[in-house]
Amino acid sequence: MLRSVLRRVLGGGQGWGAGPRRPIQSCSALVYRKHGPDLDQLRMEQWDLPAVGAHSVRLQILAAPVNPADINMMQGTYPILPEFPAVGGNEGMGEVVEVGAGVSSVRVGDWVIPVDAGFGTWRTEAVCDAADLLSVPRDVSLLGASTVSVNPCTAYRMLHDFQHLRPGDTVIQNGANSAVGQAVIQIAAALGLRTINIVRDRPNYEGLAAELKARGADHVMTEDELQRTGLGHILQEVPRPRLGLNCVGGVSGGLVLTSLDSGGTLVTYGGMAKKPLQIPAKSLIFQNISLKGFWMTQWKRNNRKDFHLLQSMVDALCAMLRSGQLTPPTCVLVPFQNYRQAIQATVQPHQCKQVLLMH
Amino acid sequence: MLRSVLRRVLGGGQGWGAGPRRPIQSCSALVYRKHGPDLDQLRMEQWDLPAVGAHSVRLQILAAPVNPADINMMQGTYPILPEFPAVGGNEGMGEVVEVGAGVSSVRVGDWVIPVDAGFGTWRTEAVCDAADLLSVPRDVSLLGASTVSVNPCTAYRMLHDFQHLRPGDTVIQNGANSAVGQAVIQIAAALGLRTINIVRDRPNYEGLAAELKARGADHVMTEDELQRTGLGHILQEVPRPRLGLNCVGGVSGGLVLTSLDSGGTLVTYGGMAKKPLQIPAKSLIFQNISLKGFWMTQWKRNNRKDFHLLQSMVDALCAMLRSGQLTPPTCVLVPFQNYRQAIQATVQPHQCKQVLLMH
Repeated sequence: MLRSVLRRVLGGGQGWGAGPRRPIQSCSALVYRKHGPDLDQLRMEQWDLPAVGAHSVRLQILAAPVNPADINMMQGTYPILPEFPAVGGNEGMGEVVEVGAGVSSVRVGDWVIPVDAGFGTWRTEAVCDAADLLSVPRDVSLLGASTVSVNPCTAYRMLHDFQHLRPGDTVIQNGANSAVGQAVIQIAAALGLRTINIVRDRPNYEGLAAELKARGADHVMTEDELQRTGLGHILQEVPRPRLGLNCVGGVSGGLVLTSLDSGGTLVTYGGMAKKPLQIPAKSLIFQNISLKGFWMTQWKRNNRKDFHLLQSMVDALCAMLRSGQLTPPTCVLVPFQNYRQAIQATVQPHQCKQVLLMH
Repeated sequence: MLRSVLRRVLGGGQGWGAGPRRPIQSCSALVYRKHGPDLDQLRMEQWDLPAVGAHSVRLQILAAPVNPADINMMQGTYPILPEFPAVGGNEGMGEVVEVGAGVSSVRVGDWVIPVDAGFGTWRTEAVCDAADLLSVPRDVSLLGASTVSVNPCTAYRMLHDFQHLRPGDTVIQNGANSAVGQAVIQIAAALGLRTINIVRDRPNYEGLAAELKARGADHVMTEDELQRTGLGHILQEVPRPRLGLNCVGGVSGGLVLTSLDSGGTLVTYGGMAKKPLQIPAKSLIFQNISLKGFWMTQWKRNNRKDFHLLQSMVDALCAMLRSGQLTPPTCVLVPFQNYRQAIQATVQPHQCKQVLLMH
């Protein structure tokens, strides 16, 4: 599916290198032609845009983040890879500037985001099928709209699809200060759920804990503390969690697992520690804990035909963004031409999310 | 629930130590009064039986196996523990010798097995509620009937409840020579499923492989071989497995996991290696593998009210026993008074299942 999306976005072979055929517009795009550890091969190039067809639209891309998955895709270590030449970037938002005669789902001036991964959002303009876009309201912030479709959607689905949770129920997560973790805290709070948030011990722990609590975290503790004391006194205030979210793995994932209530589910969506989860048989057999994984890209593939489900999730998240219940993660805004700075910062540890501004 | 079952079986305080109150019958029972590693504390004692009430029946227990869970229960390391004094044994079969006036589900002469764990089957006779019993046909072998309710039921449920499998689909399991593993091979074959069976390398490997193939195993391989070559050529003959069964843990469980098809499920029902499963995050996230546990005791608790579901499973397994599609595991038959020999053999590695014969 990724290849067909790319082909549609790039205009069926009329992109860079194929030579202009009645080009109506061109755009600047960040292009790569091979996989590998060398990120310097990413180049800003001029790309011809195809004419807008009956069912397609032309967008000005306004903002697009640099996510770790974008880097992994360039390196060739991600489970889906593009055809070459490829435009980087999977997430972002644009404004519709031209629509085909047969398009009724969006209008000129609408804000939109791509449905699927693999769009190639690091570009100033794109022509694509109108069916590959979801609408976002214009009264949401640029940052909120351009970063809503990966991390907040992941948090939203994990809170909805794995356990039937009711207001007052508890969720426990590690990597709680990650972009997904911060969205989990806020969406959970909006749903009336309580959160127990595990972070690695660090010099500025108190400041981080205060920041997460300001977002709505009920409890914040370090991995060391959880290992030493378990959930202890926290269980006098909240019920034992039935949902655990893990993006770390190794010991940390095991700590989240053993904190769950009988019949609970541990959902893994990342493996930052690069160490396997250690699962004692008795947790599975006698505590009836289930382990599952979540990957937003696959979820979108599985639900691609249910456009209403996709749009209603984005609408719900945009409503939270508008009301302030959900705030975008702390970001560094980087002018498009300074893209190398954004790429380099993304591969460093403990950096804020980098968002490219195209215009 | 276990305590209430025991109370019903023991006759509401009229058991050993409470002094006889109009005893109608007595029985020999293997009794223990504390938990701990010392298995010698198990003693053969005379136990008074209560009178048969309107809804209860009296059984002669004919045969009862010694399962590892029985030993763990005596040691106090099992998740359910009896009240003291306790009669050992969770599985077995008996013949109805007396029924209460209000009992219609069984008749004198019927063969029966306990519904729940915790019955205390190491005894010559018992009085219990008729609702605590399932019927087995009399044309099933004594060994088959007395060993059907734990291991074959576990195999049956794991093959039915975790993936929708159709004839031709593949199941992979480790510990394939365990009692459950052998039942999995036979029940899977009866269902038209293909099995890949992993065992530890051992001196008599060829003989064991031949024995498992004689039971209906499609493929048998050692852990070392699987680690070295993966499923390799086997996948030219059978589809990649969507269900994995794990009773070992550690490296072996990980090998079964990584052999599964995308969207597959690994069900853990034991942890013989006493080492945790090591689960790479990518198996969960990008292969969408789920991990679950299975415990027959809990399944019976959850489905206690659906008597038809329980009885139909036992009927299906007895039909397989009768037709020879399912054969009891290799057993050593031990006269009841020689119970110490059966207990000692059960705690040794690589011993056949020990079955006590009461009469």
